Parts: sequence; structure tokens; C-alpha cells
Amino acid sequence: MARLIDGKAFAARLRTRIADETAEFVTDTGRRPGLAVVLVGDYAASQVYVRAKQKACEEAGMSGSVHRLAPDTTQAELLAVIARLNADAATDGILVQLPLPDAIDADAVIQAIDPAKDVDGFTTASAGRLLIGLPGLVACTPLGCLMLLKEVAGDLAGKTAVVIGRSDIVGKPMALLLLRESCTVTVAHSRTQDLPAVVRSADIVVAAVGRPEMVKGSWLKPGAIVIDVGINRVPAAAGKTRLVGDVDFDEAEQVAGAITPVPGGVGPMTIACLLHNTLKAARSRAGLNPTT
Amino acid sequence: MARLIDGKAFAARLRTRIADETAEFVTDTGRRPGLAVVLVGDYAASQVYVRAKQKACEEAGMSGSVHRLAPDTTQAELLAVIARLNADAATDGILVQLPLPDAIDADAVIQAIDPAKDVDGFTTASAGRLLIGLPGLVACTPLGCLMLLKEVAGDLAGKTAVVIGRSDIVGKPMALLLLRESCTVTVAHSRTQDLPAVVRSADIVVAAVGRPEMVKGSWLKPGAIVIDVGINRVPAAAGKTRLVGDVDFDEAEQVAGAITPVPGGVGPMTIACLLHNTLKAARSRAGLNPTT
Repeated sequence: MARLIDGKAFAARLRTRIADETAEFVTDTGRRPGLAVVLVGDYAASQVYVRAKQKACEEAGMSGSVHRLAPDTTQAELLAVIARLNADAATDGILVQLPLPDAIDADAVIQAIDPAKDVDGFTTASAGRLLIGLPGLVACTPLGCLMLLKEVAGDLAGKTAVVIGRSDIVGKPMALLLLRESCTVTVAHSRTQDLPAVVRSADIVVAAVGRPEMVKGSWLKPGAIVIDVGINRVPAAAGKTRLVGDVDFDEAEQVAGAITPVPGGVGPMTIACLLHNTLKAARSRAGLNPTT
Repeated sequence: MARLIDGKAFAARLRTRIADETAEFVTDTGRRPGLAVVLVGDYAASQVYVRAKQKACEEAGMSGSVHRLAPDTTQAELLAVIARLNADAATDGILVQLPLPDAIDADAVIQAIDPAKDVDGFTTASAGRLLIGLPGLVACTPLGCLMLLKEVAGDLAGKTAVVIGRSDIVGKPMALLLLRESCTVTVAHSRTQDLPAVVRSADIVVAAVGRPEMVKGSWLKPGAIVIDVGINRVPAAAGKTRLVGDVDFDEAEQVAGAITPVPGGVGPMTIACLLHNTLKAARSRAGLNPTT
């Protein structure tokens, strides 16, 4: 039976450590690290996410501000807000909550964020630094996955890793992070032939495709470490719904050596890594060693 | 017996096409595309490379200028040259010939190049655009490899590709290019366990490690397409030397479906892709469709 990778507990420990380091930062600099979240429109799910991020900031001793803009905000207006936050000395991290309204070119907005404040790691500057192996801010979800993997497996060098999914915000940065750790990395996706065989070759499987319970237990090498990034809502009994990952958990836990549950696995790590990135940006901007 | 992938002939055809498109560009804009090569010091091999690049430009109808700086040039002086070239309307591409003297931070110099003129594709901006899948200038060697692969194999979607080597300028961008073509991509390297087995799984093998004849014929899947990026000088009979790739050619051609020779495979493509990138940058800067 697989060891359960308790992302919730790990994230809680990480957040405690970040809070301690944040207190040190305040002592050293006389100010709190500041995250500015920009929210355009009134999309309900975004409201929830944004509030959670702000609350997490406050709990860590950081300043979390939310800049709420009307649904009909123009791109020029939004870019002006970004420019103001780029120039604001008290703002260390800028996060534009996605999705943006259709009338706005999300890519142009993301690219306008000062890379030094790009706590989501979505700018081309951050992506390029990751590709070239320069220090920088890394997208929160793959960073959280990597932290869990290192916690469970220690040194990853020489291990075989398969990343299922090739998105810009999870699959590709995840592959680069694993490559940096000296894994032999394969990126698989919807066009991959014989995906079960590819997955079966891997010591580490990161599933990030957004297809409920797609990865079966029989696909796994016995003892593999499985990180499930998927969060899919599916119908359950009595007209209710439940959350499942991209991995068939009940099957997989019979075969894997360790596995993240959904929920309670990768999810809690993402917000903890946002705090991590905000503190890192703040330390870097204050001329302190970015550490961690 | 493997089909020989004649990079020299393919590069010659590509250069002819670029010369035709360059003539069109001159007609459309009234000026020639301009490549500025910056050379610091008197490293003999660099002198040869720089002359070859300038000559290739002239043959394609482009303007190729070489900015020769003394070996004791300071970083500030070099950055001032880059800034001047960034601002120069007639310069479409800027290439800083590597290696630079030890006293100069090569990374700082590369990053100072305007991404719109980054014909080597080495800036984090270019790397980030590649990672995120945005259009941009791609490093010449992996781009040349991809062109050869598409010439030989047509649509690459669903094929299994192994890239041996994880360098910033070949291995990693090559992996992203193959991923963009919907290959299932594995990046292997010095820490990879059982490299022969990993290579044997691949329809496409790109070897870019710089170790003479490391990849053996017995490692290949019969019919695989082999792209050999290595250029290694090894001792030969009578005190002479010869060039060999990272693949044991004599063995590999018995097993592979197609293979690049060394020399005459990937090498000629690199300089052709530099011309390709220079024209692309020129067209983009002139507001024309970058095409090709």
C-alpha cells in the first residue's frame, strides 16, 4: 500500500517556516513583504481563490492587497494598474488572477509584470530563466510538486520521471525542474503512443492533464512515486459531486510507493509556494539572499 | 543501410531560398537585412567562425559586419557596443561570438541583446518564448536539427524522441521544439541510467553530448532517425586527426533508417539557420510577416 504524501501537512509546515522567515524580513527591513493580487470582473471561483491568497498572506505576516477592477476594465486600464504596481516599492509580488475577460489579451498583461515581481512565474523572462537554469521565480504548482518529490524521495538524480501533460504552467516547467534535478525526463501528452508503457518506465509520475482518473494502477511501475496535479469535479452518488485527480487513486495506491491524494496533495502546496515566491521576491528586492 | 541525411545539400537549398527572400526584402524595404557579429579578442577558432558567418551573409545578399574588439575590452565597453547595435536601425541581428574573455560576464552581455535582434536565440526572453510556445527566434543548431527531421520524416506527431544532452543551447531547446511537434520527448544525460535502453525506445535520436562515438549501433531501434550534433576531433592514423560525431556512424548506419554524417550533417544547417533568423528578425522589425 502506497505511502500517502500529505501535501496539506507539508504545506502547513512550509507556511510556518515562511511565517518565521517573514518575521525576520520585517525585523531586517522594517516592512512587510507585499503581494498585490489583481482581479478583473466578478467570476465566482476567482473571488474564492483571491480571498484565499490574501488570507494566506496575512497569516504569514505579509501584506496581501486585492485590486478589484470592473468586468469592463480595458486592457489599457489594466496595464496602467500593472505599471503602478511595478513601480510601487511596497509591492514585492504581482499576481493577475486568471482567467481575464475575453476582451483583454492576457498574454500582454502577464508580460507587463516586472519579472522581479512575477510570483506566478508566468512571464517569458521567468520561463527563460528556468530554461537556461538561472535563478528566478518558478511557477507555483510545479515548484510545489518538486518540493513534495524531494521530501519523499530525497535526491532525484538518475531517476526516471514522466510528466503527463505539456502545459506552459505545469507540464513544461515541471519537466525542466526535474531535469535540473538530473532526472531522465519524458514529457508525454495526448499524442503519445502507448502511454501506459511510457508511464510504466517511470520512477516518478507527475500527472497534469485534467482528465479524471485517467492514469490506471496497471500503468504504474511498482513503487513509483505519483504526484497528481489534476483536480476534476465528477458526478457522485445522490446527485452530488466529488473531486478526483488525474490518477485512479484506489488502483494506484495498490501499486505506487507513494502518492498524493486529491484533494490534500498538490493543491495546498500551490498557495504555500505563492507565499514562498513572494518572500523570495521581497528578499531579492531588498538585497537579501533569496535563500530557500 | 541508413539513408544519409545530407545536411550540406539541404543547407545549400535553404540558403538559396533565403537569398531569394532576401532579394524580395530589399525590394520591399530598400535596405539589406543586417547581421552584426561582435568578436572580442583573437581566439583563432572564433576568427574562422566569424569570417564564415560574414561570408554567408554576403552570399545571401545580407549585410554582415564584424565588430572586432581588443582582448582587454571591458564589460562596460562591450555593453556599450551592444547598446549601440540595439539602437541601430540597420542592424537586424546581433551575435556575440563565444567564448568571451574570462573577465567578462558572458551572461550579462547576452541578456543585453534586444530580443528582437537575438538571432542566436540565447537570451532568456527568446528561451522563455520558446518554452511558452510564443513565436520568437530559436537557437540555430536545434532549429537546424528540426528542419532536417521534418525533411526526412514529415509530420513528427506521436513519434518518440530522445535528446541526449541537456545543454541550454542544444538539448533543452531541441526538446521543446520536438514537444511543439507533438513528439513524446525524453531528455537523457550523463546521469541517465541505462542510456542504451532509453535510446532504443526512440524513433528519433538527437545526440548532443560532445563525446566521440558514444552512441552505438546496438543502442538504436531499427529504422530510427539519428541526428548527430557532435563534432569531436579525434586522433587518426599517421598522427593526423579526424572529425567524428557523438554517434558511432559505421555501426549506426547499419541499423538506423536515416542518419546525419559528421561533417556535413547538422554543421552546415547551423549557419543557414543563422541567416534564416536574421531574415526573420529583419522581416519582423520591418513589420512584414516573419513567415518561414
